[in-house]
Amino acid sequence: MPKRLIILGSTGSIGTQTLQVVRDFPGEFEVVALSANTQTDILAGQVKEFSPRAICVSNGLSEKEKVRELARRSGVDLYLGQEGLTQLVEKYEADMVVVATVGIAGLVPTLRAIELGRTIALANKEVLVTAGELVMSEARRRGVAVLPIDSEHNAIFQCLSAGPREAVRRLILTASGGPFRGVTREKLRNVTPEDVMNHPTWKMGRRITIDCATLLNKGFEVIEAHHLFDIPLERIEVVVHPQSIVHSMVEFVDGSVIAQLAITDMYLPIQNVLFYPRRVANNLPRLDLVSLGSLTFEAPDLETFPCLAYAYEAARKGGTFPAVLNAADEGAISRFLKGKIGFADIPVVIRHVLDQHKGQPVRSVDDIREASLGAHRIASHWDAP
Amino acid sequence: MPKRLIILGSTGSIGTQTLQVVRDFPGEFEVVALSANTQTDILAGQVKEFSPRAICVSNGLSEKEKVRELARRSGVDLYLGQEGLTQLVEKYEADMVVVATVGIAGLVPTLRAIELGRTIALANKEVLVTAGELVMSEARRRGVAVLPIDSEHNAIFQCLSAGPREAVRRLILTASGGPFRGVTREKLRNVTPEDVMNHPTWKMGRRITIDCATLLNKGFEVIEAHHLFDIPLERIEVVVHPQSIVHSMVEFVDGSVIAQLAITDMYLPIQNVLFYPRRVANNLPRLDLVSLGSLTFEAPDLETFPCLAYAYEAARKGGTFPAVLNAADEGAISRFLKGKIGFADIPVVIRHVLDQHKGQPVRSVDDIREASLGAHRIASHWDAP
Repeated sequence: MPKRLIILGSTGSIGTQTLQVVRDFPGEFEVVALSANTQTDILAGQVKEFSPRAICVSNGLSEKEKVRELARRSGVDLYLGQEGLTQLVEKYEADMVVVATVGIAGLVPTLRAIELGRTIALANKEVLVTAGELVMSEARRRGVAVLPIDSEHNAIFQCLSAGPREAVRRLILTASGGPFRGVTREKLRNVTPEDVMNHPTWKMGRRITIDCATLLNKGFEVIEAHHLFDIPLERIEVVVHPQSIVHSMVEFVDGSVIAQLAITDMYLPIQNVLFYPRRVANNLPRLDLVSLGSLTFEAPDLETFPCLAYAYEAARKGGTFPAVLNAADEGAISRFLKGKIGFADIPVVIRHVLDQHKGQPVRSVDDIREASLGAHRIASHWDAP
Repeated sequence: MPKRLIILGSTGSIGTQTLQVVRDFPGEFEVVALSANTQTDILAGQVKEFSPRAICVSNGLSEKEKVRELARRSGVDLYLGQEGLTQLVEKYEADMVVVATVGIAGLVPTLRAIELGRTIALANKEVLVTAGELVMSEARRRGVAVLPIDSEHNAIFQCLSAGPREAVRRLILTASGGPFRGVTREKLRNVTPEDVMNHPTWKMGRRITIDCATLLNKGFEVIEAHHLFDIPLERIEVVVHPQSIVHSMVEFVDGSVIAQLAITDMYLPIQNVLFYPRRVANNLPRLDLVSLGSLTFEAPDLETFPCLAYAYEAARKGGTFPAVLNAADEGAISRFLKGKIGFADIPVVIRHVLDQHKGQPVRSVDDIREASLGAHRIASHWDAP
C-alpha cells in the first residue's frame, strides 16, 4: 500500500523536493492533495504529473479563472484561500501531511491534521516557533508523530534512537555560522542584501538566508527543538560548524555524543521522514570524510549576532514572545530588503519590539495572530534613532 | 536487583576499570567471581574490596601457596589454571560475564558462558578474531547478546540503533593512525620498541600498542566487527582520525552517517556495556568540540602499513587464517620486543607465515589452538633474509 500524502506548499523548495522523492520511488507514495500559495504554473505541472484528487491555491486570487480552468481540465477538486489548506486536510484521507508552507498560514491546518491523527512531516518553522506548546501538547495527547524535515531536527530525531529519552543530557545544534562568521560587528554595518544571499552551503529562500546570517534562524531552531523533543532550553546548545556536515548531535548523560552526518542536501531529511521508520537506498553522492579532510567547531559569537540570545530569551518568557520575535524579524527583514534599514539594524529592531511587548499566554491561534500583527506593525515603523 | 558479574581478567587494564565502574555505582552490581592471570597481589585487593564468591588464578602457579592462603583467609572458592576460568563460568550464576582476558585463553570460557545463556561483555580481541564464526553462530543460536567493550565496536553498537539492520551500508571504523602516521616506510626501519610505546591518545598494553603502530590492531577490529555485526568485509571501512574522538560510524543506505563521539576514556564503553540498555550519568569530563576545534580524517596508508590489508585477506580466506594472522603477529612482536627483528619486519614475518599456511576449517577451539601454535613457531624462527 503506498503512503498517502497531502503536501501543503508543494511548489516551494521543500515541496518540490518532496515530490522529487515521490517521483524517485514509484509505487511508494500516493499524492492525495497539493497546495500552492501563488505559483500556479508549477502547481499545474505537478497536477499533471502526480494526479492528486484535490488542490488548493491559497493566495493566487488574481489568477482565479486560470486556476478554475486547471481544476476543471484535470478533474481535481479545487479549494481557495488559506481555509482551503484546512479543508484539504479535513476532506481527504491521508497517512501523512507534509507541512511545507511558509509563515503562520501552516498553523491551523497542522493542528487540524494532528486532531485527525495524521502523521505530520514538518518543514514550516513558524508552526513550532510560534505555537510549539499548543501543537506539541495536542500531538502528545493524540499520540501523533511530528517528524522534522529540517536537517538539524531530523539529525537529532535520528540520534535520539541511541538511548532512552530520560538519558538525554544535551541537544547540540550545529550552525554553519552564516556568511558573516568571524566578521566584526563594525563591518556588518555595510552589509547589503546581496552580500547576505551568498550563503556558503545551503540553497534557501530569502528570509531564511537572512535569518542564517543573523543567527536568528538557529535561535528559531532552538525553540523548535525545545518543543519538538521536550528538552529544556538550558540543555540545548548551539555550536558553529562551518562545513555543515554534522547536522546535529545528542549528548547522553553517560558522555556519549551521537551525531548525524551527511552531505548537505535537503533531499536526505525529506526522504528520511517520508519513509520513516524505513531507510531506503538512493543515488545521492556519499559522504566522503577523507576528501572533506576536516570538520571544525567553534562557539557562536553572541556579541556580533545577538539574535540567537534573543531567541532563547523569547522562548524562556514563553507565551506570545516567540511569535512576536518571529513577526519582528519578518518586519525587520522586509525593511532591510527594501533598503530602509541596515543589516546591523535587524537585531536592534527585534530588541526594540521584544522590549515593547507585554507577553500574553497562547490559548489559540488567534492569540498568536494578534501578537504577530502588533509586532510586525512596530517593526515596520521602526526608524534608526 | 544488582547485576551479577563474573569478571575474567580482573587485574588487567579493562578488568580494573570494570571494577572502577562497579565501585562508582554502589548497589548496581554484584561481583560473583574474579580471575587473574599472574597478578595475585592486585587480585587480593579486589577480593577484599568486592567479596566475590570465587576466584581463579590461571597462571600464577609459582605462588600457589600464597593464593591458597588468600582463598582460605577470605573464604572464597579457588580455581587454578585455565580450566578454572571455565569452571567459574559453569559453577556460578551470573547475568553478565566480562571477558577481559588476553589471548585465546578467553575462548573456551566465552563459549561456555554463551551456552549457559549469559550476556557477554567482550574485551578479549582474540575471541572474535580467531573464532568469530564459532562464537557468534553460537550466540545467535542461543539468543545471547555479545556486547563489545572495545571503543570502536561499542560506538558502532550504539550507532546501529538508528536504523534497521538491513539498512546498514557500511561500518566506518576510525583509527588513530598510530604513532607513525605520515611516516615513510624507510623511516620505519629504525623504529625501536620505545618509539612505539609513545602512543598519542590511548594508554594500553604492549602488544596492542605495537598493533596500533602497525595498523594490524585496526585489521583485527575489522575482523571482529565483521563477526559481531554480521556485515560483509567489503562493507567495513577504516578511516584514520588522529584525534580519536569519533569512535566509529555507521552509514545507512539512505546516506545518513551516524557517529559516536566521546572523550578517549575506556571507562565510557565499559560503563555503557555494564549498564546496557540503560544510560547512567557519570562524573567524567564532557566532550567539548569547541575546544577541540577540529576533527580530521584521512585514508590509511596501506603501502606503509600493509598489516591492515593482511587482516582483510585473512578474514576473507576464513577458517584458520585469522588465528594464524594473530599468532604470527604475536610471535613477530615478541621477537621485535627482544630486539631480534626490526619494526618493519613485523609485516614481513606475518606475510611469510600467511603464505606458508594452508587454511583449515575451524570446527572447534582445538583447530584454532593447533593452527596458532604452528604459526607462532614459524614466526618465532623467522630470520631476516
